[in-house]
Amino acid sequence: MGPDDRRARGGTEGAGAAGRPGGEDELIAVLRASLGSRAGAHPEGEVHLGDDAAVLRPARGRALFSVDVLVEGVHFDLSLGTLEDLGWKALEVNVSDIAAMGGLPTHAVCGVAARPGLALEQLFRGLQDSAARHGLALVGGDLSAADRLFVSVAILGETNATGPVLRSGARPGDHLWCTGPLGASAAGLERLRARAAGSSSAAGSEIDAELCRAYLRPEARVREGRLAAELGATAMIDVSDGLARDAGHLASESGVGLALDTVPVAPGATEEQALGGGEDYELVFAAPPEAPVEDAFEATGLRVPVCLGRCVEAATRRELRGRPLPVAGWVHEL
Amino acid sequence: MGPDDRRARGGTEGAGAAGRPGGEDELIAVLRASLGSRAGAHPEGEVHLGDDAAVLRPARGRALFSVDVLVEGVHFDLSLGTLEDLGWKALEVNVSDIAAMGGLPTHAVCGVAARPGLALEQLFRGLQDSAARHGLALVGGDLSAADRLFVSVAILGETNATGPVLRSGARPGDHLWCTGPLGASAAGLERLRARAAGSSSAAGSEIDAELCRAYLRPEARVREGRLAAELGATAMIDVSDGLARDAGHLASESGVGLALDTVPVAPGATEEQALGGGEDYELVFAAPPEAPVEDAFEATGLRVPVCLGRCVEAATRRELRGRPLPVAGWVHEL
Repeated sequence: MGPDDRRARGGTEGAGAAGRPGGEDELIAVLRASLGSRAGAHPEGEVHLGDDAAVLRPARGRALFSVDVLVEGVHFDLSLGTLEDLGWKALEVNVSDIAAMGGLPTHAVCGVAARPGLALEQLFRGLQDSAARHGLALVGGDLSAADRLFVSVAILGETNATGPVLRSGARPGDHLWCTGPLGASAAGLERLRARAAGSSSAAGSEIDAELCRAYLRPEARVREGRLAAELGATAMIDVSDGLARDAGHLASESGVGLALDTVPVAPGATEEQALGGGEDYELVFAAPPEAPVEDAFEATGLRVPVCLGRCVEAATRRELRGRPLPVAGWVHEL
Repeated sequence: MGPDDRRARGGTEGAGAAGRPGGEDELIAVLRASLGSRAGAHPEGEVHLGDDAAVLRPARGRALFSVDVLVEGVHFDLSLGTLEDLGWKALEVNVSDIAAMGGLPTHAVCGVAARPGLALEQLFRGLQDSAARHGLALVGGDLSAADRLFVSVAILGETNATGPVLRSGARPGDHLWCTGPLGASAAGLERLRARAAGSSSAAGSEIDAELCRAYLRPEARVREGRLAAELGATAMIDVSDGLARDAGHLASESGVGLALDTVPVAPGATEEQALGGGEDYELVFAAPPEAPVEDAFEATGLRVPVCLGRCVEAATRRELRGRPLPVAGWVHEL
């Protein structure tokens, strides 16, 4: 184990040392600069950026803790989107994990490995834009050299009085809801690739633009998740791997079957993309039939969820319109 | 942005989708397997592994939050150590950040990107061994494909009643202490490289074995950090980048100068390695002269810290035995 593509700065070059690079310092300099005047005041007693660890007030309710990893060439291709898009998405996908618990995101840290010379301030601008949208604080990070870009974000959140909504609480008879149409992200990626390959015009339709935006700039459904929790949602998950796979997770963890009647498909996307595409970051939740889901969402001005169908007793049943639900969703090889 | 080296499993292959790979699921399967019977009972109300986010009791005192990134070819070389060593080290360097705040580590999540076929269960065994040493819980993770190994660990801790010890509280007149001898890690890396290059015997002396161990299996100083906090330490940092650089950080953040009398050098290491090598993960802390540091450490059975010298009024002064402190420590190029 040893550092190869680092350089000693200063006078003790012969030490042949394995010192961790000054990752925090440099990342934090970039972060501080990109925060600029937007940083605002920390809550009383909090210390962000620049010490060995950030100091935070403890979570109200329960704490929620999650991590996501994005790797160049696997999760993103910088010829299809900007570093700013990537920063935005890296945080939103983490926020989505907190949203899927019915929680409120509060703090995040990011670990970045990047080629020398990459415009990391753009990455952080995207991270900051997403953080600002959710009122969460980027409180620390670490930076390393690497020959491909790697972004890891870890996020903290907290539950409200109703507690977290797990994947495992759905019961037979519960209705299954989805907070929005699906497949837009997969269809957007298809459009972006076609455009990059020169097989479609750069302009595209308004629908195309919306699809590309869904892929590059997903929006985690925090308010929706919290409202679902307040309405007594029994189980919830975000659609990161495609509806078939994610609803399947919820059903498996809950020990229920699924009898779905409909799949909400985004304009310009296919049902196949909605079922298998993933990265839509809408929320799927189960709730007792008496939960006033439509009224409550309408009252708050949030998009009214679509009722997909219901949870059933037969735990291995996975049906869409009376036929087997296609098994879909992306899984990578170990 | 799009997935390239992933493969669709299941029936909707045509979706061309950007779904995040089933990273959590597969990582968590490996983690659960590697946890095995060691998992133990979660604290009441906690949910680890397998939901969108882990659910944790809130921190007592303040919460501490940090992240570290280890990249193959930058921070480690798998020809010099095992994956188990790497797992151990990836967690210890994070724990060290919590220790340097006077905190207690409680939970960690890990993001891993790895080549297909890599024996990740060995990595997790190392992570678990380190976690068990500190009584902390690995509560989640994410896994991706990549062509070089990348390990990101984010850690949560909590302070005790005395609150966190920042880098910035040292005052002129404070004594500066170090919890152990330095340079062993850098010297160990030197030995491991010589051995790998065939220029030294595989066996080596007992001192060599100790040095290699210091590099491959560093041990974060949690108890020492907590005791220092209880003794009224005014500032603290861990020696990750070499004494000169890290003590320099502490002094800069505190606005004090340094007049050092001595540098504790590990047997088999050089003073240059102690000053510039880094990755020793001993703690350096400042404390008022009247703090009974030696007696208190001796009473608890911990190694008695070495008094390096003192903090002085002249904020730009950085001296060792009356001469300029060599500027040293590893910094990587952006």
